[in-house]
This record gives sequence, structure tokens and C-alpha cells, in this order.
Amino acid sequence: MRVSVIGGGRIDEATAATARAVGRELGARGHEIVCGGLGGVMAAACEGAHETGGHTIGILPGPDRTAANEHVDTAIATDMGNARNVIVALNGDAVIAIDGATGTLSEIAHALDVGRPVAGIDTHDIDGVEAVDSAGDAVDYVEKAVES
Amino acid sequence: MRVSVIGGGRIDEATAATARAVGRELGARGHEIVCGGLGGVMAAACEGAHETGGHTIGILPGPDRTAANEHVDTAIATDMGNARNVIVALNGDAVIAIDGATGTLSEIAHALDVGRPVAGIDTHDIDGVEAVDSAGDAVDYVEKAVES
Amino acid sequence: MRVSVIGGGRIDEATAATARAVGRELGARGHEIVCGGLGGVMAAACEGAHETGGHTIGILPGPDRTAANEHVDTAIATDMGNARNVIVALNGDAVIAIDGATGTLSEIAHALDVGRPVAGIDTHDIDGVEAVDSAGDAVDYVEKAVES
Amino acid sequence: MRVSVIGGGRIDEATAATARAVGRELGARGHEIVCGGLGGVMAAACEGAHETGGHTIGILPGPDRTAANEHVDTAIATDMGNARNVIVALNGDAVIAIDGATGTLSEIAHALDVGRPVAGIDTHDIDGVEAVDSAGDAVDYVEKAVES
Repeated sequence: MRVSVIGGGRIDEATAATARAVGRELGARGHEIVCGGLGGVMAAACEGAHETGGHTIGILPGPDRTAANEHVDTAIATDMGNARNVIVALNGDAVIAIDGATGTLSEIAHALDVGRPVAGIDTHDIDGVEAVDSAGDAVDYVEKAVES
Repeated sequence: MRVSVIGGGRIDEATAATARAVGRELGARGHEIVCGGLGGVMAAACEGAHETGGHTIGILPGPDRTAANEHVDTAIATDMGNARNVIVALNGDAVIAIDGATGTLSEIAHALDVGRPVAGIDTHDIDGVEAVDSAGDAVDYVEKAVES
Repeated sequence: MRVSVIGGGRIDEATAATARAVGRELGARGHEIVCGGLGGVMAAACEGAHETGGHTIGILPGPDRTAANEHVDTAIATDMGNARNVIVALNGDAVIAIDGATGTLSEIAHALDVGRPVAGIDTHDIDGVEAVDSAGDAVDYVEKAVES
Repeated sequence: MRVSVIGGGRIDEATAATARAVGRELGARGHEIVCGGLGGVMAAACEGAHETGGHTIGILPGPDRTAANEHVDTAIATDMGNARNVIVALNGDAVIAIDGATGTLSEIAHALDVGRPVAGIDTHDIDGVEAVDSAGDAVDYVEKAVES
């Protein structure tokens, strides 16, 4: 399946390690990643996915697809600013949110609005977001939620 | 100024009364309303604004601007689905949120993301949203926040 | 009805005079204008509409609605770049195109795609665009096309 | 590089053969395709690209990425209607247009607006579109235009 990985654009090393672990786990289980294509959680998750052979998609807010982080395989420029967050949320079968501020919150809301299951690690405490502690638990949760 | 009024599309009578009161208060103080153009909080707020002479703008998700509620003066069709929420949030100098589910949450997040002050009545408990109890308090809050 | 007036952002004085005449004629006949909100044909048409009491709407590509020209009554910021052209085309019952380059061509195409009648003055020679010589003829054409 | 292949959604067999030839040629020369993800020219070009190992991206107007034709490798749902045409045009380094009506015309216009070279086979006769007769000539043209 395809999983939207969302979260903060500027993060500390512990959060980056978590995002890389999520990316690795998704890649190892054969899942594709879609994200916002920039830095922080987005770049770390794509980096992790590449370590285990996962395909990564980045949906960018600006007009230039070369602005994507180096771990994005397929970059899509939108030139639509925050409206790209809607596309990020829409294009996963499920969502894993890690950390993040208002942009991440908007993606969580858009994902819930179109019925996507959302697992969250150290992120917004929102009805409908399943709080989990580890990359493995996050991927377990979204796999089961999409199956059922 | 212009205030985004956001909230649930299907609401009970008490919530409708609150939304009408917000609309009336905004109109009475010379403010314009922008909303998502459909029913529930959107329609009630526009109805209230019309009672006190306010101008109302509705930004619609579909392709047909005649889908706007009858209290919208200027209807804009986007045919962009939930991406229209970004436009609703962007086009107020401040936001008043009343009730609402995930669509409203996405608008709150987008508004905070572009630095808009947000007052909330019986809505999501989010950092950055000022919880208030009445229409008057909501308008007071956004007026002061925009001034400063 | 509402008419999208589209055309070049940088124009000579003769083209500006034509655009003002189109705006005046639309306002005089009770029609509302929607445009891209910036300069050139957009500003001149809005200026003309104001001379005869017409209401003007500007749909802007950027995030700041105060970037609208001074003759726009209701400015809507989209922060969606050229995707705003789709909204400009969609929100008129008909289109009058004056001069213009590739941006205008995209709006003509989007308008035809959703079945809007299009009158053109010194603009792209496209199947489906009715070439006319004057503001009066342009407004006559779109009025009749929308009626039928 | 990445080339936007655009054109009619309902086409005859001769046009489909041309679109497949364009896809094959692009794939054979190591280029990636981006298209609107649906049928007609879009599907035929993706089919051709797959015959020679090319990667194909489809940007869809609706909310469901499974609506993509079977030859799309990476499908992106936008739920933004015709605004997706802007994204299709933006995400190629160059454009090859084959046949097509108003939707294709809008993509040509958006591509020219952001400075993309455009080769056209039996399509709109627009200033800036290089009319060519064959798949090979089309790919030659866009390769040289992007290099320079």
C-alpha cells in the first residue's frame, strides 16, 4: 500500500531517528511513501525507506520539483502552497504522523476527513489519531486498519 | 476587516443560534464574512450577517456557485474539494470557529499556519485557538488580535 | 449575470480603453465582473465597471488579497499560482477576453472546457471564441449566449 | 528528463498508435512520462513507455488514484478537477501534445506560461508550439529545447 508520512519540517535528532525507522519499516514491508517532499520528518522517512528499498513520492508546495529532498524518487511540484497538504493526505491509504505543528495538523485533519486511518507518534492528540510509541507499532496499526 | 467563520455543516438549533449571533455581531461592527458557502454554521452565520447588513462571501468546494446557501452575497466555486478549505482560512484576517469536525479542524490548522488569530466556540481544543463562550467575546477577541 | 473578464496584465492605452469600455458596459447592464484581480485588462475592466456601478471580484494567484488592484471590491487570495486561472474561468457565466498571452489562453481553454461562451477582442483565434470588435458587441454576444 | 504527454481522452486508433510511439521513444531514451492519468493519449503513451521501460506518472482530476489507467506507475489523485492540468503542465521539463481539445489546450497554455518547450502532433496551432510529424521528431525537439 501507500502511506503518507507527515510531520515537522525542522526536527531534532531523536525525531529524525524515529522518522527514519518508520521509513525503513515501511520499505521493508513493501509499502510506498508519499510525503510533502521537503526536510525534517519528510526527508528522514524517505531516507529510511531507501535503506530498505521503498519507493518515495514527494508532493511539493512550490513550482520547482528539484526542491525535493534527495531521498524523493518521484517529485511532484504543485505551486499551490498549503493546498498541497490536501494532496499529501489524499494520496496515502493511511497516514503516519510524527511530531509536527500546524501544517501537520492540517494534513491529519484532511486525512481523517477522507477516512484515512492515522497513527501518531509524539504528535497532535486528536480524536481519530491512534497514538503509538514506535515505528513498528505505527506500521502495524495502519496495516491492520487498511485491511479491515 | 474580514473574518472567516467556520464550523459544522450539520448542526443543532443551539449551534445555529450561536452562529447567527456571530454573524449578526460581525455585521453590526462592519466586518465582512468569508465561509465555505454551504449549510450549518456557514448558512447561519451568513443569515445573521444579513440581519445587520454584513457582506458575505462563500468559497465552495464544487464547480457550481449556485450551490451556495441563500445568504451568500458573493459565491466563488472552486471545484477543488477540500483545497477550498485552504482558501477559506487564508481569506479572513481572523477566524471564528464554531463546533465542527475534521473539515473545520483543517481550516483551523491552515489559519494558524498563516498566522491568523482564531477564536473558538465549542470547537476543537487546539493550541492557539482562544476558547470563548459567546459571539460578542469571539468578535472582541479577533478584533483585538488583528489590531495588535 | 457574472462575466469573467480576462486579458493581458501589461497592456497599451488603447487596450486599456477597450477593457474600461467592457467594464462600463457590463456595469451599466447590471452584470458583475470576475477577473484575476491584478493589473492591465483586469484593472481597467474593474475601473470601468465602477464608473457604472458594477461589482468586481478579483481572484488572485498569491497569498495576499491586498495585492488586488484598487478597483476590486471583493478580493480572494488563492496562493495557488496559475490554478487560480481555473477559478477565474469557472466563476463567470460567460467570458470576455481582451488581448492577452498564455495566461489568458489558459483561461479561454478552461472556460470553453466548462461550456462557457467566450467573446474575444484582439485575442487568441481559437475555435469557440467569438471574435468581436467592440465592448458593446462583446456584451451583446455573451448576453445572448447565456440566455439561449 | 521528464516529459508531459498530453492530448485527447477519446481518440481513434491512428492517434493511439502515435501516442504509443511517443511513449516508446521516450522510454527508450530514458525519459519519464507525466500525464493526466486517464484514457486516450494518456493511456497509449504510458503503454508505449512501458514497452521500453519508461516510468509513468499520472496526475488525476478526481479523488481516487485507482482511477488511473493500468499503465500508470505512480498515480497521484488531486480531487482538484481541471486545476490538475496546471500540475501536469508544470511537472514536465517539456511537453509533447497529441491531438486533444480544450483540456489539452489549457495544458499547452499553462506549459508555455511557465516556459516549457512544447512539440505538437496534430494538435492546436498555437504560437510557441513546434508542429512535428512523428514521435521521433517530437522527442528530438524537446530534447534539444531542454538542452539549450
